[in-house]
Order: sequence, then C-alpha cells, then structure tokens
Amino acid sequence: MSTRLDNYLRLHGRKINAALLKFLPSVSRKPSIIHESMRYSILAGGKRLRPVLVIAGAELCGGKADDVMPTACAMELIHTYSLIHDDLPAMDNDDLRRGKPTNHKVFGDDIAILAGDALLTLAFKLVAENASKKKVDLRAIVDAVKIISNASGTMGMVGGQVADIKADKGRWKRLKGSEFSTPKNLLEFIHLRKTAALIRASLVVGGRLAGGSLKQLQALDSYGTCVGLAFQVTDDILDRMGDKAKLGKKGSDRDNQKLTYPALFGLENSHKIAGALTKKAHNSLKVFGNSAQILHDLAAYILNRDH
Amino acid sequence: MSTRLDNYLRLHGRKINAALLKFLPSVSRKPSIIHESMRYSILAGGKRLRPVLVIAGAELCGGKADDVMPTACAMELIHTYSLIHDDLPAMDNDDLRRGKPTNHKVFGDDIAILAGDALLTLAFKLVAENASKKKVDLRAIVDAVKIISNASGTMGMVGGQVADIKADKGRWKRLKGSEFSTPKNLLEFIHLRKTAALIRASLVVGGRLAGGSLKQLQALDSYGTCVGLAFQVTDDILDRMGDKAKLGKKGSDRDNQKLTYPALFGLENSHKIAGALTKKAHNSLKVFGNSAQILHDLAAYILNRDH
Repeated sequence: MSTRLDNYLRLHGRKINAALLKFLPSVSRKPSIIHESMRYSILAGGKRLRPVLVIAGAELCGGKADDVMPTACAMELIHTYSLIHDDLPAMDNDDLRRGKPTNHKVFGDDIAILAGDALLTLAFKLVAENASKKKVDLRAIVDAVKIISNASGTMGMVGGQVADIKADKGRWKRLKGSEFSTPKNLLEFIHLRKTAALIRASLVVGGRLAGGSLKQLQALDSYGTCVGLAFQVTDDILDRMGDKAKLGKKGSDRDNQKLTYPALFGLENSHKIAGALTKKAHNSLKVFGNSAQILHDLAAYILNRDH
Repeated sequence: MSTRLDNYLRLHGRKINAALLKFLPSVSRKPSIIHESMRYSILAGGKRLRPVLVIAGAELCGGKADDVMPTACAMELIHTYSLIHDDLPAMDNDDLRRGKPTNHKVFGDDIAILAGDALLTLAFKLVAENASKKKVDLRAIVDAVKIISNASGTMGMVGGQVADIKADKGRWKRLKGSEFSTPKNLLEFIHLRKTAALIRASLVVGGRLAGGSLKQLQALDSYGTCVGLAFQVTDDILDRMGDKAKLGKKGSDRDNQKLTYPALFGLENSHKIAGALTKKAHNSLKVFGNSAQILHDLAAYILNRDH
C-alpha cells in the first residue's frame, strides 16, 4: 500500500469510527441488548472501505468529508447488516468473522436478525439526517436514498446474495432450465450485485451529495463497478490460495462448491481478469486528472492485497 | 363496522393493492425467487391498515391518496417485512400466517430473511420516489424518511420486538435486576413500540407529506398512539378468547407465556383499558372537526372487532 493511501485510510478511518460511535444508539438505551449487538458487529473492525469511498467520491466533486459523514456511516451500517445476516445458520452458517465469533454466536439468531434489520433502518435515517449539512441540498438527499436502496435491494446486493445462495453447493454446474444461461453469466450477475453494487453506490452517492456533474458521477460509477468486481475476484483468489488465519474465517468457498472466478476460469486467468479490471478502473479516473490519486492507489492496493 | 368505513376501506384497499402490485419488482426479473417470495407475503392479504392510515392522515391535512401512495405502500412493506422475520424459526417459529404457510415454510429461511431485508429496502426507495409527486416538497420527503426509520428501528418496532422476545416464555415474571422495573412498564414499552409506533408513524407521515400544520401532526400522533395501543390490547384479548380459525394462526400467546394485557390485568380490565384508549383517540380528533369521521369509525371498529 502506498504511504499516501495508508495515511488517507488512517485519517479517515479514525473520523469514521468516531462518527459511527456517535451515530449508533447508546447501550444505555432500552432494550440494551440490541444496541450491544449492533455495536459488537460495527466495532469488530473492518477497513471502512465503503465510508472511505463515499468521502473520496465527495472530495473528487469538491465536497468535504464532514459534509457526507452520516451517509458514509450509513454505507458501513448496510455492509455490516449484510454480513450479520449472511453469517446466520440459515445462510452461510459462519461461526467466525474477522477472527471473532459472529453476531448470532454471541447474541443468538433472533437478536442477530433484528440487529441487521435495525442497522439497515438506521442507515436510511442517517442519510435523511445528512440533510442538516448546509452544503448538501434536499434533492441530493432524496437521490442518495434512491441510489442506496437500489444498490442494496433485489436489483443490487440482496439480488446478488440470492443468486449466490442458489448457485452454491455445486448447483451452478446444473443450470439447465434455470433463469441463468451459463455459469459465466451467473457469476457476473452475482458479483456485479453482491459486492460491486454497494462499492459503486458509495462512490456515486458521495459525488452526488457533493453536487458532482453527470460526467463526474458516471466516472465514479464506472470506477466503482470495476474496483468492486476486482475486489470480489481477488477475494475469490485469496479464499482459494490464502492463509485462513489472515482471512479470519473458517469456511472456504471451495468447501461449499461456490461459484467463483478461480472455480470457473482457474487462478491464472482470474489474476488476469482482476488486472484488466484494475486497468479499466484507472482509465475511468482520467476525467479527474491528478486529483484522483487516492482512488488510483486504492485500485492498485485491492489488486495486490494479501488479506 | 360502519358502512362509511367499510366503503372507505374497500375503495382505498383496491387502490393500495393495485399500487403494491405495480411497485413490487416483477417475478420476470432475476433472481425470480426473491420477487416471488416478496409478492407471496404482500399478496397474502391483510387489512392494509397502515397504508389506509397514511391516506387518511394526508386527507385530513388537505392531501389526496394519489399524492402519498408510494409512502402508503412503503408502510405495508415494512409491516410485512416485520411479519416475515417475526415468523422465522429463530423468532416466533410460526407455520401459519393469515391461514397460509408462512414465508419461510414456502421459500426457506434464507430467502425469507432476504425477502424481509428487500421489502425494508424497497420501502425507503418508495418514500424517496414519492418526491415525483408535484404537491409533495422535498423537505417533507426527508422528514418522512426520518419519521419512518425512527418508528421502525430500535426506538420503535424493532425495539418493541426485542423487548417482547426477552419477555416471553414467562421471563417477564422475573424482571429483578433487568432494565425494566415492573411488568407493567415492560408491557407498555413493548406495545408502544411493537405495534403503535408504525401505526402512529403512518398517520403522521401522511399528514406531513400533505403539508399538515404542527397542531394537525400532533393530533394525528396522539390519535395514532392511542389507536395503536388499543389495537394491541384487543389483539391480546382476541388471542386469549378468540377463534383460532378466524385469527388464522396456530400458536397462542398463552402457550408462549407472553406478557400481554389479559395476562397482567385480566380480561375485564383489559377491555376497560381498550375502551379508555379509544375514547382518548376520539378526543384527539377534535381539531379536525367533522372531517375526521373515518378515523372516528376506525377507532370504534378496532375496539369492537372479532378478528
């Protein structure tokens, strides 16, 4: 990772963590267990990638981190809710997340379901509360709600998750008569939605709140799509190759016979695909000139990361 | 039920059902199973009480049904998502809802969880899309997102659900050392949030979108709180006394040793409480003069219903 990117992530990571602590209801509020559960998963760490992308998108369109912080945090809440629900026994049944017991292992399945619901609900509240920032106009807030709901619902993240569930346990090898024609179509469908949709929305929503032009928003959209896909391809590669301790999780995609890039194209071709996506992401940034160095570095980092 | 109320519910029920069909993604969109699952629970029926209240609230403040229809439907999506998640094996574990198999019995727990998530997400999208109605201003849309998220999250519906779970199986009899001092406090906490919060928000959000005055919104708030509580008290009474076939569900609160009004105060006193709440609801409507007859009839109907 470049020193420039490292500094940027540290600086904004601290601000984002402070804001998350402020926006999450206190555990002194009743019923305390649901607030403990929400805090447990939010504070379990993570790179805060999505909030950082909201901020980076806003900065590239002339905005400031503080002006978009509630919405930046909203994206982390949505990401975290999706992880809590994904980990449930009824879904991926994971006991560990980032090396710690998953939410339902600590609080029970019922509270974990409700904590996810509550984080999603709070996310939209934060977007609405972003209207208190003087530099953000009301039309942009309403657009932000639309962008985020589209990216999170069945046309986005939830749709990708459903397709992923229906493809696992080797079922992607038996697509005949299904709504997906080939494993490649299905794989792209899943990854465009499951991971890329929220990453892309983070960048676009940051740009939109900062009053970015259509051309700027399209560039952020294109960059976000490429980086989001590259992120998932490298995730698949790391899962196949990687050190389970570093990844902090128990199961593996291979064990579940999941549909992944390495499963379909092999490791070498998957590397090439990730490289091509990163190049395309870099090209999308040209409209911003030299001001997009952070996003340039970030795309390179995602390609080369080891966890 | 008065003929006037019956006609009102039929007229708007038809419009709401048509709008819900329009707003829900088509099953021809991939992945079809999640859209089938969402439609299954939405189209399973129900009184469409919350959407009707959005419309009634708007009309009392000078608005029209068509101007608030997306938000009216959003309230039904949120109500339905909460039922799908409540019915899950990890929560109430109900096999039947309105006499039909619950969502997870038909689609599996994983899809049921995601269908709930998707309905909640779509709800906020619909509120944002309500901005396309010319008579509704952007500030009102942003306020609507805040009102609805407050009513649905841990300060509202989800908070009530958590407290309800933690009180069932007779645990409400052992409150010593807990965050709730008495069973009565806990019961009021649950019912103000689990049922009343969404009913109240429906009325207020309708009034807000129609540009209602603070005095009008406060009257709707007070009416909604009383009617919402009365609804839950009569629900508890019906569960204790009622015909299970008419109620269309299998389990009973008594079997689960739930904390209810009849369990705490007895049937006769519960009737009295519901009556007093209905009277208070009627009083709240005075500010609207004769134009509030529908809400007057509705409060009386909720008190006297048999299913």
